[in-house]
Amino acid sequence: MNENEIVAKLRARFPRIGDDAAVVDRQVITTDMLIEDVDFTRAVALPRIARKALAVNVSDIAAMGARPAYAVVAVGLPEWADIDALDALIEGFAEAAKELAIEIVGGDLSRAEKLILSIAAVGTIETRPLLRSGARPADRVYVSRPLGGSAAGLTVLQRGALPAAYAAREAAESAIRRHLDPEPEVALGLALAAIPEVTACIDISDGLSTDLHHLCDASQCGAEIERARIPVFPGLQSLGVNVADAVLHGGEEYALLFTSSLREAELSARVKRPVYAIGRITSGREVTLDGKPLEPRGWDHFARH
Amino acid sequence: MNENEIVAKLRARFPRIGDDAAVVDRQVITTDMLIEDVDFTRAVALPRIARKALAVNVSDIAAMGARPAYAVVAVGLPEWADIDALDALIEGFAEAAKELAIEIVGGDLSRAEKLILSIAAVGTIETRPLLRSGARPADRVYVSRPLGGSAAGLTVLQRGALPAAYAAREAAESAIRRHLDPEPEVALGLALAAIPEVTACIDISDGLSTDLHHLCDASQCGAEIERARIPVFPGLQSLGVNVADAVLHGGEEYALLFTSSLREAELSARVKRPVYAIGRITSGREVTLDGKPLEPRGWDHFARH
Repeated sequence: MNENEIVAKLRARFPRIGDDAAVVDRQVITTDMLIEDVDFTRAVALPRIARKALAVNVSDIAAMGARPAYAVVAVGLPEWADIDALDALIEGFAEAAKELAIEIVGGDLSRAEKLILSIAAVGTIETRPLLRSGARPADRVYVSRPLGGSAAGLTVLQRGALPAAYAAREAAESAIRRHLDPEPEVALGLALAAIPEVTACIDISDGLSTDLHHLCDASQCGAEIERARIPVFPGLQSLGVNVADAVLHGGEEYALLFTSSLREAELSARVKRPVYAIGRITSGREVTLDGKPLEPRGWDHFARH
Repeated sequence: MNENEIVAKLRARFPRIGDDAAVVDRQVITTDMLIEDVDFTRAVALPRIARKALAVNVSDIAAMGARPAYAVVAVGLPEWADIDALDALIEGFAEAAKELAIEIVGGDLSRAEKLILSIAAVGTIETRPLLRSGARPADRVYVSRPLGGSAAGLTVLQRGALPAAYAAREAAESAIRRHLDPEPEVALGLALAAIPEVTACIDISDGLSTDLHHLCDASQCGAEIERARIPVFPGLQSLGVNVADAVLHGGEEYALLFTSSLREAELSARVKRPVYAIGRITSGREVTLDGKPLEPRGWDHFARH
């Protein structure tokens, strides 16, 4: 296949692609790159990888309290990616863009040794941006949903076999979906941005411990959280993983971690869904779990090499 | 080094980096990815590679007639890239952003096997966007400056030795700069966008022949251009390259290719610099050079594999 054929294919699916740059007029921009054998393997179907690449960018927009608007997609295609693979990627991006309510308006294609999906996404701020830096002492620390599923799903995938027991099997499949098919919290982010008492927000991409440190660093504060209050992904206990590690340090959750002076019942009522208070912001600079220091042991692309 | 150290370094140079997404409110977005051993080699200094990655994105904005505003940078770092390499990249991006008058507002870092620089850039439209699709029969076809230097510079680099004669040496060095240090035509793009008689525009990234086909395809027209009217990069004849191939098909020029009903003298006066009429738009669909079909023989990432 040559570039013209590829461009024709892209245009058929994304009619706004075509000029050197695309015309937009929006307000929040982010970028995330996924690389084969670093962020995913070829064992995962290409449309699913495409969806994940888009979803993690949309999650960044959600964490800002903004509405997804536009994205541009740069793809590095390895030799093994034939025309069917390209079709699968394009179809995956098109479906995911529809589901995630974001429009792909431009892109770039290169040859590469590994599959690379690099996306930049733009979102519209409807009320105000949610920053990491607004947390204040005595604010409550919240997470948007039960944690640990993504890390457990990755472990199950790496094992290569599902548990035999029915209930564990269900939990395993659901954990794998949490890992492979992230659900960005767009509606929640927009709702939180509209509530003045919400003070800071981040999405949990590196793991609760690491992202809580990020939020506290940006806000120049500390936090004390309680293990017993952190909601745990349903069935996590049946999957033979270290539950505490998965919940505290597991990355790629794409839940929101945020702070507010409002109580849990009040905030849940305002956003019309459960949110989970797991602790408090403090005026010191320490981050603690049940009174002991909580080290940032989540994902760090560079420390492991 | 770990990610925190890297982030701290990035923040020191790019103070707006820090949240999941950056707050902007602009109007044109583009993306281009450069990959080691595909788009550049390790023989080129890292700051120069960083500048080029940013410049090719800025050139896309220039081709739209917009003003560069913001960029996000996703970097895949291979094992060989140590802390000094990262410093060189960061410094290169910071210097280039200043020179190219664009602000880097966000980014992403991953481990990779090869160095990957994937950039998305946003620009502001001040008057109207220049599209590829507006060319009309009888419009003149223009290029913004002499062509062929970039392809010749690449050939000289690949030879690994400069010519001995002084004049050829000067020309060789200047061609290498044209190849390694693209000069996006931002001021010209903005000026052209403000002139209603300018009908279409594209930057020459794949080569004149290929990009003229792109422009004609988008405008549903043809073009007839004259070899003798195409300005040739100074000293190109002394470099032992095929001059016609370099001028007609050489990629990575980042000159502008555009169309207008205005004559060369009038248009040059309006933009206060020389621009070069090389032919006419026709109502047919053929692209010809001196009456014979001009095939798109410029760069195609995929046809060569």
